[in-house]
This record gives sequence, structure tokens and C-alpha cells, in this order.
Amino acid sequence: MNVAIVGATGYGGIQAVNLLKNNKNYKISYLGGNKTSGTKWNDNFPFIKLYSDPVIEKISVENISKKSDIALLCLPNGISSTLTRELLDNGIKVIDLSADYRYKSLQNWKKVYSKEANIYKRKDDDLCKEAIYGLPEINKDQISKARLVACPGCYPTSALIPLAPFLSQGIIENEGIVIDAKSGTSGGGREPNQNLLLSECGEGLSAYGLINHRHTSEIEQIASSISGNDIELLFTPHLIPIVRGMHSTIYGRLRDPGLTSDDCRILLDNFYRNFKNIKVLPVNSFPSTKWVKNTNQVYISVKVDNRNGKIIILSVIDNLLKGQTGQAIQNLNIMCGFPMDDGLQMTNNYP
Amino acid sequence: MNVAIVGATGYGGIQAVNLLKNNKNYKISYLGGNKTSGTKWNDNFPFIKLYSDPVIEKISVENISKKSDIALLCLPNGISSTLTRELLDNGIKVIDLSADYRYKSLQNWKKVYSKEANIYKRKDDDLCKEAIYGLPEINKDQISKARLVACPGCYPTSALIPLAPFLSQGIIENEGIVIDAKSGTSGGGREPNQNLLLSECGEGLSAYGLINHRHTSEIEQIASSISGNDIELLFTPHLIPIVRGMHSTIYGRLRDPGLTSDDCRILLDNFYRNFKNIKVLPVNSFPSTKWVKNTNQVYISVKVDNRNGKIIILSVIDNLLKGQTGQAIQNLNIMCGFPMDDGLQMTNNYP
Amino acid sequence: MNVAIVGATGYGGIQAVNLLKNNKNYKISYLGGNKTSGTKWNDNFPFIKLYSDPVIEKISVENISKKSDIALLCLPNGISSTLTRELLDNGIKVIDLSADYRYKSLQNWKKVYSKEANIYKRKDDDLCKEAIYGLPEINKDQISKARLVACPGCYPTSALIPLAPFLSQGIIENEGIVIDAKSGTSGGGREPNQNLLLSECGEGLSAYGLINHRHTSEIEQIASSISGNDIELLFTPHLIPIVRGMHSTIYGRLRDPGLTSDDCRILLDNFYRNFKNIKVLPVNSFPSTKWVKNTNQVYISVKVDNRNGKIIILSVIDNLLKGQTGQAIQNLNIMCGFPMDDGLQMTNNYP
Amino acid sequence: MNVAIVGATGYGGIQAVNLLKNNKNYKISYLGGNKTSGTKWNDNFPFIKLYSDPVIEKISVENISKKSDIALLCLPNGISSTLTRELLDNGIKVIDLSADYRYKSLQNWKKVYSKEANIYKRKDDDLCKEAIYGLPEINKDQISKARLVACPGCYPTSALIPLAPFLSQGIIENEGIVIDAKSGTSGGGREPNQNLLLSECGEGLSAYGLINHRHTSEIEQIASSISGNDIELLFTPHLIPIVRGMHSTIYGRLRDPGLTSDDCRILLDNFYRNFKNIKVLPVNSFPSTKWVKNTNQVYISVKVDNRNGKIIILSVIDNLLKGQTGQAIQNLNIMCGFPMDDGLQMTNNYP
Repeated sequence: MNVAIVGATGYGGIQAVNLLKNNKNYKISYLGGNKTSGTKWNDNFPFIKLYSDPVIEKISVENISKKSDIALLCLPNGISSTLTRELLDNGIKVIDLSADYRYKSLQNWKKVYSKEANIYKRKDDDLCKEAIYGLPEINKDQISKARLVACPGCYPTSALIPLAPFLSQGIIENEGIVIDAKSGTSGGGREPNQNLLLSECGEGLSAYGLINHRHTSEIEQIASSISGNDIELLFTPHLIPIVRGMHSTIYGRLRDPGLTSDDCRILLDNFYRNFKNIKVLPVNSFPSTKWVKNTNQVYISVKVDNRNGKIIILSVIDNLLKGQTGQAIQNLNIMCGFPMDDGLQMTNNYP
Repeated sequence: MNVAIVGATGYGGIQAVNLLKNNKNYKISYLGGNKTSGTKWNDNFPFIKLYSDPVIEKISVENISKKSDIALLCLPNGISSTLTRELLDNGIKVIDLSADYRYKSLQNWKKVYSKEANIYKRKDDDLCKEAIYGLPEINKDQISKARLVACPGCYPTSALIPLAPFLSQGIIENEGIVIDAKSGTSGGGREPNQNLLLSECGEGLSAYGLINHRHTSEIEQIASSISGNDIELLFTPHLIPIVRGMHSTIYGRLRDPGLTSDDCRILLDNFYRNFKNIKVLPVNSFPSTKWVKNTNQVYISVKVDNRNGKIIILSVIDNLLKGQTGQAIQNLNIMCGFPMDDGLQMTNNYP
Repeated sequence: MNVAIVGATGYGGIQAVNLLKNNKNYKISYLGGNKTSGTKWNDNFPFIKLYSDPVIEKISVENISKKSDIALLCLPNGISSTLTRELLDNGIKVIDLSADYRYKSLQNWKKVYSKEANIYKRKDDDLCKEAIYGLPEINKDQISKARLVACPGCYPTSALIPLAPFLSQGIIENEGIVIDAKSGTSGGGREPNQNLLLSECGEGLSAYGLINHRHTSEIEQIASSISGNDIELLFTPHLIPIVRGMHSTIYGRLRDPGLTSDDCRILLDNFYRNFKNIKVLPVNSFPSTKWVKNTNQVYISVKVDNRNGKIIILSVIDNLLKGQTGQAIQNLNIMCGFPMDDGLQMTNNYP
Repeated sequence: MNVAIVGATGYGGIQAVNLLKNNKNYKISYLGGNKTSGTKWNDNFPFIKLYSDPVIEKISVENISKKSDIALLCLPNGISSTLTRELLDNGIKVIDLSADYRYKSLQNWKKVYSKEANIYKRKDDDLCKEAIYGLPEINKDQISKARLVACPGCYPTSALIPLAPFLSQGIIENEGIVIDAKSGTSGGGREPNQNLLLSECGEGLSAYGLINHRHTSEIEQIASSISGNDIELLFTPHLIPIVRGMHSTIYGRLRDPGLTSDDCRILLDNFYRNFKNIKVLPVNSFPSTKWVKNTNQVYISVKVDNRNGKIIILSVIDNLLKGQTGQAIQNLNIMCGFPMDDGLQMTNNYP
């Protein structure tokens, strides 16, 4: 399969190059990037050598379509929507890593991404409806038949994977869910940004986007669809001074306060039994983000307050792999008929 | 006033030396430390020079009593209780930075600190009852008359300061409070400890002590006493790879879901009007732990989810100052009749 | 004295505000910044409150001159030269923190700062000749009479302070000096810059500007003038993932290989006897940049290889204080007739 | 081949497990560790799962010999010498990662490692003479025939790899070499140690072991043997607040000052032509330690001061891989007849 990496010099693109360059299932057929177009890959990244040393090309539907069967769009919000319809029309399957197709309704997207909606005058509600939300552990079958997959980012992944088993079976109450998430700075991308300077965020921690963060609505949409009920929840992202890694601490209330920590652990274990990249920890073993760095794994731990049936679920992921491009490759594998974890068995190199 | 710093070479003691060495109200009359006893201060800390270059002395009631009017006990849990009664009997006032006198009931302490209770066979329930919980913004009057103050540590301070206005006036529901706290590594002390090695905790984040952390019961005790009702809550501490700083993200539910973020901000503002070290931020301004590093300040921010009356309160402190020794100096000032903030007007040196 | 801080929202400016806001000798009479002009200081920096909450003004000679006796120019290279002559003509003394007046010859500046020379067509060779290099421990008398001081930055300060005693007395050979310097990221400023993102420079270390770094020529100029001989040396800057702090490791060869480490320590001690901010450490005590963080101090340590008379000198400074604005305040004090260290007795708050 | 990992729970051992667990050439036949003996591997390291979940065994020659063909000794200095002779006598080949066999003369080892020499009364001068210094790019042939390899650590590797081409051909002068090296904290091991706490070394940088560091003598021994002349040099290690990574900045003087940076780059290129893990960068491209993290690669960059023929050489390695266990696996491959880089083609996952 010939794969186009569109937006190759951001962190999403770099991960894609790394994951695909020695992958026997795929060939990197196109590298696209507007700022660096015309320059050679190895000059930009002497430490991620490609033997063919390809030239980074201008991003255009034509360039992509000529060379590729499938495209990974690692682009800022809004831009993907300007390429997707034509790519699909040319028979190119699309895995979009932006938020453009994560909402079933274009109207919702426009409400949440109003700034982008003002720039890109989208009229692709049909594609929003068609797109499959690319959480492979939940939507595997639909993904396998999709032309267009909207690959979820780090925050929703890190929240939904641990919540899904409890929501889908009605184990926790829909009301009162709190997601307290902590992200390394690479989640903010590679563009120069004062807030992400080491001088500004080093030796500090802060929350941002309280109540209204864009991902609140995305998490609520998917959580509601999994549970079958409308869910309103609290989601608070925090920036932590590490490069890679995301930790979510999730709070809820069991419907049946008699369930024990071990009951909940077993529930998780059963739900993810067939997914080798999801690891459920023994009760009282709490994961560090370091455990999953450079891997596509998710570690989950659960504990119940047996005084009152409150529950805490922890999850850790690498925000650039399971939280971004690793997940995209899972989707790619499923769409192309390969085993989901092919090329994703990276080991963590502790410490 | 002659002040003894007992346990001078840990982080609590070092802060105390720094805060008192040029303080016109106090004289450091005694430095105690068992491992370093007999050595000179300046040889241990060439970068925190004391002009008199005192010798660090063996820790004993006699040594302390000879030279001091008041003692700051910066010692591991359990040890303070072996010195306190005799010090009080000798007329020395005591500010204890450990957990030994934070519980009104010795029985409760023994339950929570069972390991220490096995080593130190305490029989000072009377002192537990006498000790005042040293949160100056709440207990100022009682502190001013106390012989024995139990100075709260970073986690309870960072949770209780933002919660107190809401609890004392019944603004938030007693049920469903969640405290998600993040701490720099210096909170774990200066003793060699594998978990606190830069190699182990650098570039990572993890939670610990879920549900059963010792501070859960301490926070519940004080929160219950402030609100007048029994409160059970969830408290989750996390270790973050910074040296100094603590951030608490607190979730609750308003009794009156019609209150706005601004209403809540004003409530906080009024409550802490007379406390210059407590700063309430405008709505949508979210503090970084960097803002309070090397100061005794607390920044608080509050926001309401106006769909449902859920509330999020953020607080940041320097865990070694407002979370430990800065607070002890506030108590010292109050007990000695000085203005509470004397010698604590440090400015943050951003970044 | 009324002091203008020109370029108030960069790291240099922020330090100046912090150092002057409660300084009894000075009043901040003007805050200038083009990007933020028209906004209020406290809205930009809620954590560095100014009680008067001044408006940040457009940068212009007129605005500055109306209100101030002396101006601190915390501006990018080249821009200072567009303001300085007029300010001096208006009777305003100038302390320039950029490189514009650090070279005695405008021609040299144009060679080294060729990019800036293309933008700013400077014709102020007279001012280059008039300006005093503001290293107070070396040039105190000249500074006291100057209208225009070129305040050296972190790298030259951290190299020249430890070298000056050896160079001025001919103790080390002029040939073969190596300066291996390591800087925290705040030395690179507060402007968004991909290289300074935490994601890019966190968990890494790299050298830059080998052989040709601009500061090589500046250090060589001043070292030559101190020694009385032409000196060519090697200077290598490295970026380290900390916010504040600079460490220089300096290598040389003693003319008299019989000198011991203690001889060299005593030499340093004598040279800086009257400068309380310069601390010479006992032999075999090696400083950390942490020791000087948030202070205006320099720690120096020296050791000789007694097999062959090679010498290693270490120095640490806070790059934003002794390496930038603390030094500017020393110059300000000297120019205004105050004791050099007034308002600069900050203590380091370890850890 | 059955491989014993002796000292499996330190950083060296953990890397060995990671590198060997899916390596088709080898089977991990024994895991030894005294403190954890009797516990299961997966309980200690839930994030580095071994499917067989072996028990960590007491360290003894007997235990090792029963199960293994070759032993990797990842042990503190001195202890290896108590096992090695017997292992060799039992026909077990030994790769020792400590310093015990890095000196050709036991007398020299005793001088440098005097503390260990007092504890372990060694009488194995014959083995010191027999042992091969395991720098595979230099000593490949000898390693292939060896029973006992002394694997060099991070500092000597990071200094000798870039210096060897210049020393062996007499390109740089023997006199005046300076090695300024910077190491992440994992080089200090996993044992609790106050100096390596994040609180102590975070946000700081310091030098240590000036002039007399143990590795000075080791580097001098090998550099002298490569050059054929006695070499005295300056080596200064620095501790930097990153987990993994080492950067060496090496200064010297060309015998022929007419050589250009490109001449020197070509010399390096030719010397390491057959070693895919050694990458020579274009002139003016300077590597970050991030480029080699989690890989076995070395990046080298060189630049000449064409005013005077001074030369600066930079190298970066991952201190736990090419600087420790990756190198051990290279030696293992050579001793067992496999291609040197088998199982070592890890890619760096930037950032």
C-alpha cells in the first residue's frame, strides 16, 4: 500500500514516518509540507534518515493522488476539510488526524471550531455523517469498511478507553463524571508558541480550557453514544513539563456501590481481552506515563472507595502514539486488512 | 524571640533558615539535626551562608530548651511526639510541621499512621486535643493563644484554602467533592528515595495513594469541621517532575446551580479580603504553579459549568512555603504577636 | 530617580520590574513595549502586580524622555541604536542590555551583527567609542561617570568574571583558553521559537554556534583588553533544559605550573575581596547553577592539574540576573551614586 | 545462546532484558539480583513483561553456570571480580560492565578504585591482562576471540569514539586535549542517592570530579594505547537534568593547522565507514542528545577554527545503550559470531 503523509514535519507526521519507514506492509509514497516543500527530508531530519531521501512536496490533492492509495492527514483543524472530498473522489482513502470529521454533525463542528469555521466555509455535512470515529478498540468493524476515518486525539482517547467498558454496560452513573487529564507539551504541536517554550512551562503546571475546552464536547458526544444516554461531564486538561505522555484520572460513581475494585478490574480485563495494547493493572498498581512512552499501549488501573461506591480510573498513553499517530496506524491496518497491531509492537525503554 | 529549628537540614529546615536568617523579629538560636550533628552549617550549605556559622547540634529537649523560646519541629512523623511534651513543660512553644498533632484524636492518628504508631508508643491524647490546626487564614485567633500548633502540609493546605469559603457557607454540596492534586518532588523530602530520583520520575507523571492516602482523612476531618457536616471526599495525589509547586483541581456541585462563576469569585474575594497572600483571579485566568514559586502566596481561580452548576476551583501554592515552612512562619508570627505576613513578602521571579 | 524600562515584557524587562518595583532608590516611571502597548501591566502579568497598574506604552524617545532620568533598554539587537543618541541628547542616561554598544568599533559590530547591520544603518561610531562596558567588578569607576553603558550578557559575564584575575596578572597563558558554557533556555528570550519549545529542547542537550558564535568576538575583545594582549580562544555555548542558570567550565594553562589549586583560589579571593556578590569556593567544592538561581551572585571554583599546570575554573550565574538585569541594576546603582548591591541582596531558595 | 543477566534490576540490567527479550539470537536464561531475589520479574516491572515471568535468582556462580553460556555482569565495581574467574573456569564467557577489568594492570585499578580495593582483595592480575577492552569499533577482532570483555562505560565511549581517528593517525596533538562531558542522571544508577533526586538536580547543572575523576585515567590509558604516546588530558563530567543522554565536547589542536573542518569530517567518515551506528554529520550540523535517545548510535560533528587550527569535536550517545548495555550487546554479538548490530537497530522516536 502506498501511503501519503500529509503534514510530514509536525509531530504527527514525524511519528508517521518513523512508524512506516521500515513497515513491511506500507511504502511512504508522498511526504507533504507547505513550509518545507522543495527541501529534502534528510536535511530537515538528519536523525530520522530515509534511504531514498525524498523531497517534501507541496500539499495538493493532485500530488497526493498520483502516488498514493491512502492518505494520513496530519494537518491543523480546518485544512483537512479542503482536501478530503477530492481525495475520496479520486479513490484515495483518508485517515484524518484533525478534528474536522470527529463530529457527526457539521453544525456541531462549526459551533465548537467557530474560528476555523470562519476561515474554511465547509459544506461537507455528508462526509461528517459518513466518517467513522477511529477508536479501533470500539469501532473496529466500521473502520474496516470505511473510506474516511476521523482519528481521535490524545485527550478523548485517554478518557474514552477507560470509560467505555463502564459506560457501555451502565456500570457507572451518567451524572457526575470528572476527567482530570494531564498532557506533555508535544500535544501542543511543533509550531512556535510562547506558552510551550521551556522557559514558560518548565518547572510549572497549569490547567487550561476549564469547562469549555473543545474536547469536552467531543468526549461527551462519544461517551453519550457509547452509553446510549446524554452525558454531561467535567473535563480539565493540564499542561505538564514533559515531552511525551498523558495521564487521565477519571472519577465517577458506581450504580451498584457493592462492586469492589477487583470486580471493576475484571470488567476492564474482559472488555479488552482481545486487545493486546490495552493492559489492565492489578489493583493498587498505578501506572506512570513513562511506562508507555514510545509505545502504542494503554495502561489502566481502577480503584473503588468502598465506603461509598465512588470509583477512580487511571489511564496513561503516549500522546503522540496511541494518542495520535499510533492510533492512525491501527486504523490504517484495519482499513487495509492487516492485523491491527502490525508494526506497533514497540517496547518502552525504561527509564 | 529565639527560635530553634529542629531538623534543619531537610527541605523544611532549609526553608526555615532562609526565612529567619535576616528576619528582624527572630534569632535562629539552635539548629538541630542528628545525621549532621557536630558539623558546621556553612560546610553543609555553602550557598546559604550564616554569618555566625553555627554548629548543627544533636536533637535533644535539653539542647533546644536552653537556647530557645519556641521550636519549629521539621521532623518525620512520630518523632515530634517524643519531644513535644517536655518542650511544652519547659515553657517552649512548639510549631510541629509533622502530622503528629493534626488529628484531634490520638486514636485516629494511630489508625492512619499505624506504622509510626508501632514505633512510637504515644500517650499524649491530651496534647492532640490541645493542639491547634495551624491554618492561619481559618484559625488565627486560636493560633494566637496556642502553645502547640500542628502546621498542615501542602496537600491539605492546597485543598482547604479554596474549599473553606464554600464549605463554611454551605455553598457546595458535601457529597461528591473531588480533589485532584499535583505535587512537585520536593514534597517527598530530601532523604534518598528511589521513587524520587530524577531518572525515575523525570519525564513522567503518576498518581499514588488512591482512595487511602493519609491526607484524605486529614482533609476530611478539617473539611467536616468547617462545614459542620461529615464529609467524605476523593483525594488523588500525583507526582509531577518539577522541584517546587503544587496545583489542586477541585470539583464539586453548587447547591444553587444558578450561581455564576463571578458570584463564586466574589465569594472567595470577600472571604479572603483581609489576607494579602491569598489572590483570587479573574474568571478565565488560570494560575501556573510558577506564579507562586518561592512565595507564600495562594492563587485561586473558580469556574462554574452553567449547564448544571458543577464547579471547578483551582489553587496553586509553593509546597515548601505556603505548603510547609512559610505557613509555619505565619503561625510563628501570630503566636509571637507580629503581623502574620512579616518576613513573608517574597516576590516570584518569573520565569 | 525615574527609570524607564524599555522592552518591559521580555524576560529582561520582567526582571527589571521585579527588581525595581519595591526599590527605595528608584521609581518605575515608564514601561514600554510595542506589541502590548495600550494594555495594562497587571492584565499581562497578574502574578507580578504593580499597585499603580500602569499602561504599557508605545516605545518612543518622546514618551521615555518626558518621564525618566535614565532608561534601561531591554531590546533586540539593533533597535537600541535607533533610540540612544536622542535619549542622550535629551539628557537621559542609557543602560543598553543589547549588543549594540559592546564593541568599541562600529565596524566590528557590523561584521559580527551583519544581519542587524543590514536593517539598521548605524552611524554612531562615536557612541560605540564612548560607551562603557558595564562589567561593574572590572569597570566600576568608568561606569560611575558614564552616560551610556553597554551591559554585557550572560555568556561574556560568566566567562570574564572568573578569567579576569588570571588574565590581568598574566597568571594563565593567553593561548589555549577554552570556555565551555551551558545555558538555560531563558537566555534565548521569550519570543516564540521552535528551538526553545519544551518539546524540542526538553530531555536533550546540544551545542550551537561552534567557533563563530557572536560572543566569541566579544569575549576576545574584553579578554584582550584586560590582559593587554591579543587573545584568541574557543567558546562553545550549549543549551540545557533548565529555565534559569548558566555554568561555564573554563580551561587554561598556568604560566607557572607550580601554582596549586589553593594559590589560585587565594588569587581569586583577593581580586574579588570587595565584591560581596562574587563568592570563591573552597577547593573541591563545585557549584550548581541552582545555588545562584534568583540571585545576583557568582560562585567560582578553581582546580589545578598538578601533573602539568593545567587549570579548570568553574563559574555559575543566574543568566537573567547577574547575566542580564541584575547586572544592569548594578550599573544603575553605580551611575546614580548608590551602593552597587542595593536592592540586589536576594537569597536563593534551595532547592 | 543462553545469556545470564547478572544484576538485572539496575538500569544496565533492565536495558539488557529489553534488548534480549525478543532477540532471536539469544535466550535470557537467568536473571540475578540479590535484593529482589525470589520475586517475580513481572511484579517488579509490570511495564516490561516477560511472558515466562521468571523468578529473579540469588547471584551465585553456580546458579549462573547451570543455565548459561555467557554472562552479562551489570554489577557495582568490585563485585564482578568475585565471580569472574569461576565463571570462566566453568566455561562461561563473561562481559563485565563494571570497571573491574578495564585496566590492563590490577595495580592501576587498585590505585584508582582504592575504596573497592579495600573491600575486595583481588588477585586476578592475569585476568586484567587477558581482558579485552570492549570498544567494538576499535577492538572487534580481539573481542571476537575473547573469553572476558571489559565493556567501557558512557564517558570513555563518548570521548574515545570521536578521538580515536585523530589519535591513531596523529592528526591532533597529544598535548592539550580537553573533554567536557555532560551526562543525564541515569548514568548514576538506580540506587537511592540524594545527589540524584529530582529535587536536588532538577533545574540545575553542576560539574563534579574535576581533574581526578576515575574515568580520566581510563580514558588516558586507552587514548595512549591508540596513539602510541603517553597522553595526559583534562576530563570534566557534568550532571544535567535529563534522564538519558550524554554529550561530549572535545577540544584539541591540529598538528597541521591547514586542515579544514571538511577534511576532518572526511577523516571521521572514512574511519567509521563500516560502522553503521556511527554517524558523521555535515559541518555546522550539531547533534542533540535527543537524536540518539533509545538507540545505539553515535553522532559526531567536527569543526576547525581556521584562524589557528584548534578543533572541536562533538559526540552524543544514549548513556545506557551505546554507553552501557547496547555496547555490551555489540560485544555479545561479536563474541557469538553474529553481525555486530543484530538486535540494535532501534529508531529514535523524536521528540
